[in-house]
Amino acid sequence: MTGILKERLFTPGPTPLLMEAQARALTATLHHRTESFRQLMRETSEHLRYFYGTKNDVLIFSSSGTGAMEGAIANLVSPGERILVGTAGKFGERWLDLAKAFGIEAVKIEAPYGCPLPMEEFDRQLRSNGAFRAVYIQATESSTGVSHDVQTLGRMVRNHPETALVVDAITGLGTTALDPDGWGLDVVIGGSQKALMVPPGLAFASVSEKAWKLIEKSKSPRYYFDFAKERKSQAKGETSYTPATTLVVSLHAALGYIRQIGRENLIENAAMLAQATREAARALGLKLFAQGSPANALTAICAPEGLDSGAVVKEMRQRFGAIIANGQGTMKGKIFRLAHLGYYDAPDLFAALAALEITLNKVGHQCELGSGVRAAQEIYLKRSA
Amino acid sequence: MTGILKERLFTPGPTPLLMEAQARALTATLHHRTESFRQLMRETSEHLRYFYGTKNDVLIFSSSGTGAMEGAIANLVSPGERILVGTAGKFGERWLDLAKAFGIEAVKIEAPYGCPLPMEEFDRQLRSNGAFRAVYIQATESSTGVSHDVQTLGRMVRNHPETALVVDAITGLGTTALDPDGWGLDVVIGGSQKALMVPPGLAFASVSEKAWKLIEKSKSPRYYFDFAKERKSQAKGETSYTPATTLVVSLHAALGYIRQIGRENLIENAAMLAQATREAARALGLKLFAQGSPANALTAICAPEGLDSGAVVKEMRQRFGAIIANGQGTMKGKIFRLAHLGYYDAPDLFAALAALEITLNKVGHQCELGSGVRAAQEIYLKRSA
Repeated sequence: MTGILKERLFTPGPTPLLMEAQARALTATLHHRTESFRQLMRETSEHLRYFYGTKNDVLIFSSSGTGAMEGAIANLVSPGERILVGTAGKFGERWLDLAKAFGIEAVKIEAPYGCPLPMEEFDRQLRSNGAFRAVYIQATESSTGVSHDVQTLGRMVRNHPETALVVDAITGLGTTALDPDGWGLDVVIGGSQKALMVPPGLAFASVSEKAWKLIEKSKSPRYYFDFAKERKSQAKGETSYTPATTLVVSLHAALGYIRQIGRENLIENAAMLAQATREAARALGLKLFAQGSPANALTAICAPEGLDSGAVVKEMRQRFGAIIANGQGTMKGKIFRLAHLGYYDAPDLFAALAALEITLNKVGHQCELGSGVRAAQEIYLKRSA
Repeated sequence: MTGILKERLFTPGPTPLLMEAQARALTATLHHRTESFRQLMRETSEHLRYFYGTKNDVLIFSSSGTGAMEGAIANLVSPGERILVGTAGKFGERWLDLAKAFGIEAVKIEAPYGCPLPMEEFDRQLRSNGAFRAVYIQATESSTGVSHDVQTLGRMVRNHPETALVVDAITGLGTTALDPDGWGLDVVIGGSQKALMVPPGLAFASVSEKAWKLIEKSKSPRYYFDFAKERKSQAKGETSYTPATTLVVSLHAALGYIRQIGRENLIENAAMLAQATREAARALGLKLFAQGSPANALTAICAPEGLDSGAVVKEMRQRFGAIIANGQGTMKGKIFRLAHLGYYDAPDLFAALAALEITLNKVGHQCELGSGVRAAQEIYLKRSA
């Protein structure tokens, strides 16, 4: 160490923590089978419904987001039934892996990494390729920084009463306008370590009435992620199994903060930071990885010509303590990703971009110092009062 | 509130907290009359000697820095004795107020706000104007952002065995190279909420052997800030009166962190940030308030032509949650101050400057977006590997 070096997270989860919410957990003495915890759970569920913008149940699980994704397979689909999966990145591929693990046939609709899924293809499959028990998609694909038009997809799936629409909105919630009830998003998955500003360890699933009816029919094995059992428990303010109590306390506090600033403002905040980052990248002579409909949750930027993105990631970490994400899988070395979801403000982005400018020059991509920051400042000014 | 707004302190005390040190205090269960606390005090004193760069005693008081300043008057000077005071800002004036409160005659050497004190004038007074019991000065005058040449002053005072040199280094410690033992700085005052990265509430005074001899002679009333009594107590790892225990725990942890990064690196960090800020201010068409020998602890910047600096302070706070300091006393409205002491890194400064650029344009001072950041980035690159 040769001076002050603060660690800063710019990864699409975990994200910077809301310290006030962390502090709340420190002082909480509670047992999960008491009225005071039940009260906390009921309030947290109510807060979550606000955050989601839904009147549906929102179940809370002590697990990572993948746990709730597994639940959205096991609770909805029986072995031998078919599902339709949109896959355009690492998280889309997870739906396929889950289907395989549960012996469920998945018909996939693909798009190349960096491109959004073609919605018309879903319509074609739903109309012409027989029954699907459910359709699975990401609201925003965190591995590529692309967002999907789940509103249009909702309109398509709505015409099929025996088909549920499941949306992984783990990085979509709090970064993108979503209307589960109005758009017919039957199951929407979320996670604590994203726009919610608390540590990893909690996952969420909203479940529509249409989905509850289908859940009754599923014969797939499930126990920990049994949605119907959790619905019963959580109606009483309990969870079926021991919950991660301190995380629930932090979540409750963070959701209180989000209600204060307003869900729409939280989303606009991410949208502004994302647009500012895209303009900054262009000003610095870098290409964006997303070909159309870039996500607000994060921006995926192509490595400078002739360079490995790992060099950028490493230099940012070593020089500035700034942790940005490399590409995943075959995208590793080709892109780096900068997140905007949750507890970030404009000065956070200015700091990251100034650090990135120095980093780029150090690893061999010449760019004008201050020019990325300026592009971001201009977007900030355009979108703020 | 219309989005995420993080409060950021850029004031010359209190400064950003080292959270790891705060967290340590949360888990400390201790009583101040136990061996475990005595051990903590002894280690903290040892750490403080490293931080000061001295072999002298460094006393710890539970008070603000002003308390230790009072002690440096009451313990050294008797009513009727004379002292020499250098005053070039609000904190220099505090020495005069203290002398008055204790019935001590102060001969003052002045410089206009923004200018350093003329060292030759101290020499002239010491040589020609009879006996002074002590000489009082600031290492860095936080109200104007000017640093003083206490090394030269030490050389002058050293020739007078009955005169102590007292240096208020509350914002000087950890930002400026000081050598109390080599330069003959007999009493050096410090405070916890500055480069030490912990909250306000603790003050420090290092005391040389020369000063201890003079302290024996002082007849001024003192009780809480009785240096000799504290020396005895603290030699045993105790304090005479109940100490602010959790602050001592945080201080111990913060000093551990400072030893890890190195005192010299902490100082270089502030020096780099200060130079970068001065260059940024010039790039933005702003004038610096300090006329010669600017401090590393903070930079005082003149309000843009025709504007009140309060407008800049207010806009920074409301728009970005960034708290910078206005001028004090007659300097209010004329300058604003940005601090560099303690837990700041380069990205913190880039963020503050980008916010300042937007702020300046908003309050009516046109400047090129990104140009201040670029000037700071260039200094960063020049001074880092």
